[in-house]
Amino acid sequence: MVYFFEIARKYSEIIKERGGGGITMDKVQLDFANCMEEKVGKEGIKKEELEKLNSLIKEAHQNIQKKKQDNILGFMQLPYQKSEVQRIKAFADEYRTKFDNFVVIGIGGSALGNIALQTALNHPFYNLLSAGERKGNSRIFVLDNVDPLFTGGLLDVLDLDKTLFNIISKSGNTAEGLANFFILKKALQDKIGDKCGRHIVVTTDKEKGFLRDKEGKGALDSFVIPRNVGGRFSVLSPVGLVSAAFSGIDIELLLSGAEEMDNICNEAEIWKNPAYMYAAIQFLMYRKGKKINVMMPYAHNLKDIADWFRQLWAESLGKKLNNKGEVVNVGPTPVKALGVTDQHSQLQLYMEGPLDKTITFLSVNKFDLQMEIPEFYDHYLKGHTLEELLKSEEKATSLALTQNNRPNLSLVLPQINAHTVGQLIYLLEMATVCMGELFDIDALNQPGVELGKELTYALMGKAGYEKRKEELEQKEAAEGKNIYII
Amino acid sequence: MVYFFEIARKYSEIIKERGGGGITMDKVQLDFANCMEEKVGKEGIKKEELEKLNSLIKEAHQNIQKKKQDNILGFMQLPYQKSEVQRIKAFADEYRTKFDNFVVIGIGGSALGNIALQTALNHPFYNLLSAGERKGNSRIFVLDNVDPLFTGGLLDVLDLDKTLFNIISKSGNTAEGLANFFILKKALQDKIGDKCGRHIVVTTDKEKGFLRDKEGKGALDSFVIPRNVGGRFSVLSPVGLVSAAFSGIDIELLLSGAEEMDNICNEAEIWKNPAYMYAAIQFLMYRKGKKINVMMPYAHNLKDIADWFRQLWAESLGKKLNNKGEVVNVGPTPVKALGVTDQHSQLQLYMEGPLDKTITFLSVNKFDLQMEIPEFYDHYLKGHTLEELLKSEEKATSLALTQNNRPNLSLVLPQINAHTVGQLIYLLEMATVCMGELFDIDALNQPGVELGKELTYALMGKAGYEKRKEELEQKEAAEGKNIYII
Repeated sequence: MVYFFEIARKYSEIIKERGGGGITMDKVQLDFANCMEEKVGKEGIKKEELEKLNSLIKEAHQNIQKKKQDNILGFMQLPYQKSEVQRIKAFADEYRTKFDNFVVIGIGGSALGNIALQTALNHPFYNLLSAGERKGNSRIFVLDNVDPLFTGGLLDVLDLDKTLFNIISKSGNTAEGLANFFILKKALQDKIGDKCGRHIVVTTDKEKGFLRDKEGKGALDSFVIPRNVGGRFSVLSPVGLVSAAFSGIDIELLLSGAEEMDNICNEAEIWKNPAYMYAAIQFLMYRKGKKINVMMPYAHNLKDIADWFRQLWAESLGKKLNNKGEVVNVGPTPVKALGVTDQHSQLQLYMEGPLDKTITFLSVNKFDLQMEIPEFYDHYLKGHTLEELLKSEEKATSLALTQNNRPNLSLVLPQINAHTVGQLIYLLEMATVCMGELFDIDALNQPGVELGKELTYALMGKAGYEKRKEELEQKEAAEGKNIYII
Repeated sequence: MVYFFEIARKYSEIIKERGGGGITMDKVQLDFANCMEEKVGKEGIKKEELEKLNSLIKEAHQNIQKKKQDNILGFMQLPYQKSEVQRIKAFADEYRTKFDNFVVIGIGGSALGNIALQTALNHPFYNLLSAGERKGNSRIFVLDNVDPLFTGGLLDVLDLDKTLFNIISKSGNTAEGLANFFILKKALQDKIGDKCGRHIVVTTDKEKGFLRDKEGKGALDSFVIPRNVGGRFSVLSPVGLVSAAFSGIDIELLLSGAEEMDNICNEAEIWKNPAYMYAAIQFLMYRKGKKINVMMPYAHNLKDIADWFRQLWAESLGKKLNNKGEVVNVGPTPVKALGVTDQHSQLQLYMEGPLDKTITFLSVNKFDLQMEIPEFYDHYLKGHTLEELLKSEEKATSLALTQNNRPNLSLVLPQINAHTVGQLIYLLEMATVCMGELFDIDALNQPGVELGKELTYALMGKAGYEKRKEELEQKEAAEGKNIYII
């Protein structure tokens, strides 16, 4: 018996029967009552504060619309890439049962969205299912580090004859991705010789970069990351969609959810736009000194959405300079937790520690599977379901936090499916962009990681970085013995 | 070929040849140079500040020694539980090849240590290896949530005939563990009938609690969680050791590492005790407003050590009251990151965001596997190894953080093996206890989660909580329509 997988399929079919697009489905909603003064006293927000922010939000909306028209916010076009989606589907339909394994090679924005979609919409032990249970779809792996034991370990479990590699890099030059790719390509060549291109898919820029240049032609196929879609906003581009389609996720439904949320988020009025409201609340909370944003899904499937969100929020909003060039060193710190699991780990701190946090629950109204707790020894749990226990704990945690004056809010999914997950992803992307406008920073760049990259190039002997290397060596030679090591 | 697994075994054998105990092995060290004023300016610590703290540390040491003598800090005895370890080994040797699956049912302290040890010391895709590659050892699962899709999904991949369940709960009454246990026990009964006790192991208090009472006698075997060992300090007790032994981890080597670190941490002098020094630095940094403690392993294997540490640090140190009963709402927030992966996710924030963090690297001097990057297209990476790339990125990140006046420090493991991981675990436990003394709080309790538990009991209809339930219902009835949902 395969509980989850069957149910996920059935659900997807039900939605199709209802008309395919899924746009009549229930909406993801934001419940922020427990952030208000009425509930959490002076730790909370006054309604007037939200009203006062409304003009700033309207300005943010205008800026976002302007950037959209100027073709800067490419992620806002992704729900509408119908022909690209058809191409991905056709490709996946042709090959997903021909390969046992589909391996994404990528890091950061090229990996986190893939992982988030797999965890959210597939069986929790997907790679352990038999081929029959997976309906012949490929197992999915994401190689997102350059640890030799991790890469070596992956090679241990792959039959290279039956493996398709998707190397993803927007620039086409990412060191980590290329290092792993070279190792895996060599292993492929050793095993199957010249035909190894038939086992490689390239996902990169349309024209530029090392990958497109060297591997684009010889590969089985290639996909394009639009130039105006940043890595952390790329999950609904081919970056995330190809592996999703290979594991049988309904990517049209996913995009229909994003489309529905795009329509909702087209609204300048804060009280009608959950993405802007989420940003407004987080912005006000940040100004009150609550600089830590905990995202706590009450659903195992949504745990890696929280991880994907960490990149989106941290890399977009953690900035030294504002748009006027002033040093602001701004940025909320996203933290990932998991309900109910982390009630037994992080909750003590959230309840009693410093008043420096908001907690965002990802809440699921209805799970697709009920599991009744059978009777043993007349225990009080008998006859209840796991869902009841989970939902009771979620409610109890929210009530207890509120009683302790700890602001918390919920993003509520009616159910977990591709349509609601598409909505959630898009909502969080729009909230991030809006938050960038409120902070008056550039949410699309990441200047802070350049120095580290240059130092890595110097240490690895990349041409052009000889001077940096020399500086490093001189600095090290000048330093005495490290007395601060014990 | 099984890269990792073979090497891990070989390494363990080498250590045994050297004399078994492993106490001649290299030590885990703390490098905190990049926390000092010389390196990060006013964001750093003056050497005098450390000297000044030394008397406070000596006092902390006396308190710790007193508590140890008073039998309060039971985790400090765990490295010396030789007979218990022999019993666990004998049990695992008898059964680990007889069952295909070993399932831990537990949450919080009953789960995180198990997961951390498995990830640290086993193959990164351990459960995907064939039985032969696992040398017949069981696959390991940890069921640490009450999500119906997660529990249902686990049932999909277990052959119950071949599965041993280890239900772990210190109190013997944990709702989440029991709910899952009842479901799995019923599934077992339906499949194999009366013999189902032969598939159950109980790990709980020696005498007290529901589990001991009801399941202790019928089970295949049972293990004891000492009363003076709190859940979050229990990884080196039977809680973590049984699953470790079932997957072939050398638990004697693990404890020899803890023993070695116990000897080191027996030292009152801050400059000789890396645990106390770690606590001292974090304490000084907290006082400077750096209340976020990021732990960033540069090793895939150590990523769940960071997760285990999150519970240890957050639950021990996040407290409303100090020992004088004053409201302090104290507690650093632990954050988990992973190098190099999160350089492409969190690093931008750490480099440019608020100056409210320290970064602790878990650093590995030498990996047991080298993977050379082959030559393609004359790329600059050719001839380097993955280890070189990883270590260069780690160094570059540390240098760049330091240059940006962001304090960072490293816990350095000579290699990853049971002995060094045992050291690391014990060091972090001692640092946590010391930090509790410096904050003048009780690091061993968790009063903040009680309210949530009581509310859950009320919602689930547990006897004795009827009044709470009534209060809840009245409160809800009194509340008007929620206008803060969009």
